[in-house]
Amino acid sequence: MTTLSFEKIQEQLDLTRQAARKLAFASTAQKNAALQAMGEALLASSDMILRENTLDCEMAAQNGQSDSRIDRLRLTKERLESIVQGIHEVIDLPDPIGEVMTSFEGDQAIQIAKVRVPLGVIAMIYEARPNVTVDAAALTLKSGNAVILRGGKEAIRSNIALVHALQQGLNEAGLPIHCVSFIEQVERETIDVLLKARGKVDLIIPRGGAGLINHVVENSVVPVIETGVGNCHVYVDEDADLAMALAIIDNAKTQRPSVCNAIETVLLHSSIAERFLPDLMARLTEKQVEVRLCDKSFAMLQSTEFAGSPWLTMAQESDYETEFLDLILAVKIVDHLDQALEHIYRYGTKHSEAIVTADEQKARRFLQEVDAAAVYHNASTRFTDGFEFGFGAEIGISTQKLHARGPMGLPELTSYTYRIRGQGQIRP
Amino acid sequence: MTTLSFEKIQEQLDLTRQAARKLAFASTAQKNAALQAMGEALLASSDMILRENTLDCEMAAQNGQSDSRIDRLRLTKERLESIVQGIHEVIDLPDPIGEVMTSFEGDQAIQIAKVRVPLGVIAMIYEARPNVTVDAAALTLKSGNAVILRGGKEAIRSNIALVHALQQGLNEAGLPIHCVSFIEQVERETIDVLLKARGKVDLIIPRGGAGLINHVVENSVVPVIETGVGNCHVYVDEDADLAMALAIIDNAKTQRPSVCNAIETVLLHSSIAERFLPDLMARLTEKQVEVRLCDKSFAMLQSTEFAGSPWLTMAQESDYETEFLDLILAVKIVDHLDQALEHIYRYGTKHSEAIVTADEQKARRFLQEVDAAAVYHNASTRFTDGFEFGFGAEIGISTQKLHARGPMGLPELTSYTYRIRGQGQIRP
Repeated sequence: MTTLSFEKIQEQLDLTRQAARKLAFASTAQKNAALQAMGEALLASSDMILRENTLDCEMAAQNGQSDSRIDRLRLTKERLESIVQGIHEVIDLPDPIGEVMTSFEGDQAIQIAKVRVPLGVIAMIYEARPNVTVDAAALTLKSGNAVILRGGKEAIRSNIALVHALQQGLNEAGLPIHCVSFIEQVERETIDVLLKARGKVDLIIPRGGAGLINHVVENSVVPVIETGVGNCHVYVDEDADLAMALAIIDNAKTQRPSVCNAIETVLLHSSIAERFLPDLMARLTEKQVEVRLCDKSFAMLQSTEFAGSPWLTMAQESDYETEFLDLILAVKIVDHLDQALEHIYRYGTKHSEAIVTADEQKARRFLQEVDAAAVYHNASTRFTDGFEFGFGAEIGISTQKLHARGPMGLPELTSYTYRIRGQGQIRP
Repeated sequence: MTTLSFEKIQEQLDLTRQAARKLAFASTAQKNAALQAMGEALLASSDMILRENTLDCEMAAQNGQSDSRIDRLRLTKERLESIVQGIHEVIDLPDPIGEVMTSFEGDQAIQIAKVRVPLGVIAMIYEARPNVTVDAAALTLKSGNAVILRGGKEAIRSNIALVHALQQGLNEAGLPIHCVSFIEQVERETIDVLLKARGKVDLIIPRGGAGLINHVVENSVVPVIETGVGNCHVYVDEDADLAMALAIIDNAKTQRPSVCNAIETVLLHSSIAERFLPDLMARLTEKQVEVRLCDKSFAMLQSTEFAGSPWLTMAQESDYETEFLDLILAVKIVDHLDQALEHIYRYGTKHSEAIVTADEQKARRFLQEVDAAAVYHNASTRFTDGFEFGFGAEIGISTQKLHARGPMGLPELTSYTYRIRGQGQIRP
């Protein structure tokens, strides 16, 4: 049984590879027609998709999943329409493939053009959100890549229904259905087949919790782009506009605490801490944020109305290492910018970091010295997002330095080739 | 003993990481001053370096190494001067770090600049050429990266002497000596310490044979750039200028057969094969190339002067899979362009591929449909090289599609960060 399913994945990988080869030369018009047909097929199949999704949600409820997890899993007519709207946005994006990135003359006057090409086959390994299935299919198709999808088992029925519709669209547009392949087996071992598929898969993008991402990075022989783990900070400098700092911290923590560009720790310069803390606590407790304070900040609050508040606790060392993804915020007082930089260097995950200050020199140092995908001066870390950056799409946020960093749009899903023209040149 | 040496490598990794952090903000002037001092220190230490190198060469001879291997290992006063000349060429190259690659406005009018930054710590794992030690140190330093070098044991004394001089130069210029770290232990297990150093090493570049590269790719949890394996082809189309084809094949096979951009197989269109083969055999045998022919081409030559020639043998399937890196060439007759494309798709290693044809349409198809780092029309594959492309330097030739493809110069050793300026913007 197990052997059988692995064979089936190998077969799927071969079909996906063949599809990728064909898709690499598809015209922009053909890809857009396929996207259009995929969107139409999704709407035409919406009854079936929603029925299968209901079964997934019922199963999740039976398995005792939390309401918030079930909500992430659930599709509705409106959500499906919004997913299809996402496909239309991808249709409107420029096709990156074939772009001449630069051209120049080499030795012996050979003419060299550096041209954007697809990566080939991309594997996406993700968890329980069925919208990722469609988003990933649309972005990889537009960038000329075939995709092999491996979603979480909670969404398996929804995903099979969605992919069925997507493949129908591909077929109508004359593209191989394996431009979008989906692994139906839910055993965890199927992930490992992808991780070992060197030569068949060109890139793996894991999207999910730290456990999944670590498993992929530590076991893959295929290149991986790490996404999404964000232990992000706001540093409030002594020269900060404190009203601005308050608004930024509130936004970066509470506007959507479950996402990777939300902050987990605030660093406060010691000279403004005593003045700023009561206002900060008032705002955070109003928003029901649990605050975990360093010794100094905890002590400072003992002479205020917040002494004994159930929202306040003493921070442990481990709190500074944790991506809470929840309404929890750690606070630490630092004596100067260098100490803030050191804290971020030690605990940060190179995702998004912000300084609030009116001092241009300190801002410049922070922007230059913090090693992260996105570094902010006087703005919320919540802007680290392909749509907010104006990329028009996003397949994930890379926290590694190789290939792509930060929000990944269509160009980040491409490679390049050098095409060289000569008249018989040889190397002397 | 073994535990001890692993601890030492961990300590070196920490020191290299600290050096990288400092080096990331070094000015161009400081980096160039260090490169200058490194070159001077190499020349000042040349007696010591050449003495140690002689000991390496003697040891290699005792161990029965081939003359060509010993020659690659050997340093002379002239070779050392040429290595130092290489450092000066790196000084003259523009500093990629700090370059604003693009800048744009995001949501809420936040100002976003995409700025080039170093990768951090690069590990180079290579074999017996001591010049790689200096080349890699110069290129990584100029691109703001610290490097941890792990060279082959045959060159260990030479490498230690070279690195000693390089570190002296760094020290004189006020940069941490661990900007260039070198692992002195020669046990194979030291490689695996680097492969597992996730979070301490940002990129591993293996340079050497397929065995080394496969070992690195299959065992590394750190991102890797695969370099150098080149099973390259020239396809001679029915519309080719045959004199041009002859010159290109000769150049691509014989000018330097041991390098990755040399060709291993020639594909001949069936309609020109009978006419072209005798001239091709005459040229190749004159250059002492052993030719391994497919059934058809072997049969064609039985009615010529080459019947029974000791230079000709029948090709095995495995010959088409082999990177000979020697004066050996496989030949295969194909019936049309599609068959040539299929052969290259099946056996090629995505390095360098060429078509010789006067037919523009076929050239265009070949350039577009062959998936390789460099694809040539009417030119020798030997041009795939950072210097030939005008990059002024090269740390290796990437055969993968992620991050960098083809010759890698300074920009390919960098990442980027988004630096964002606001006036208090939050995400609505």
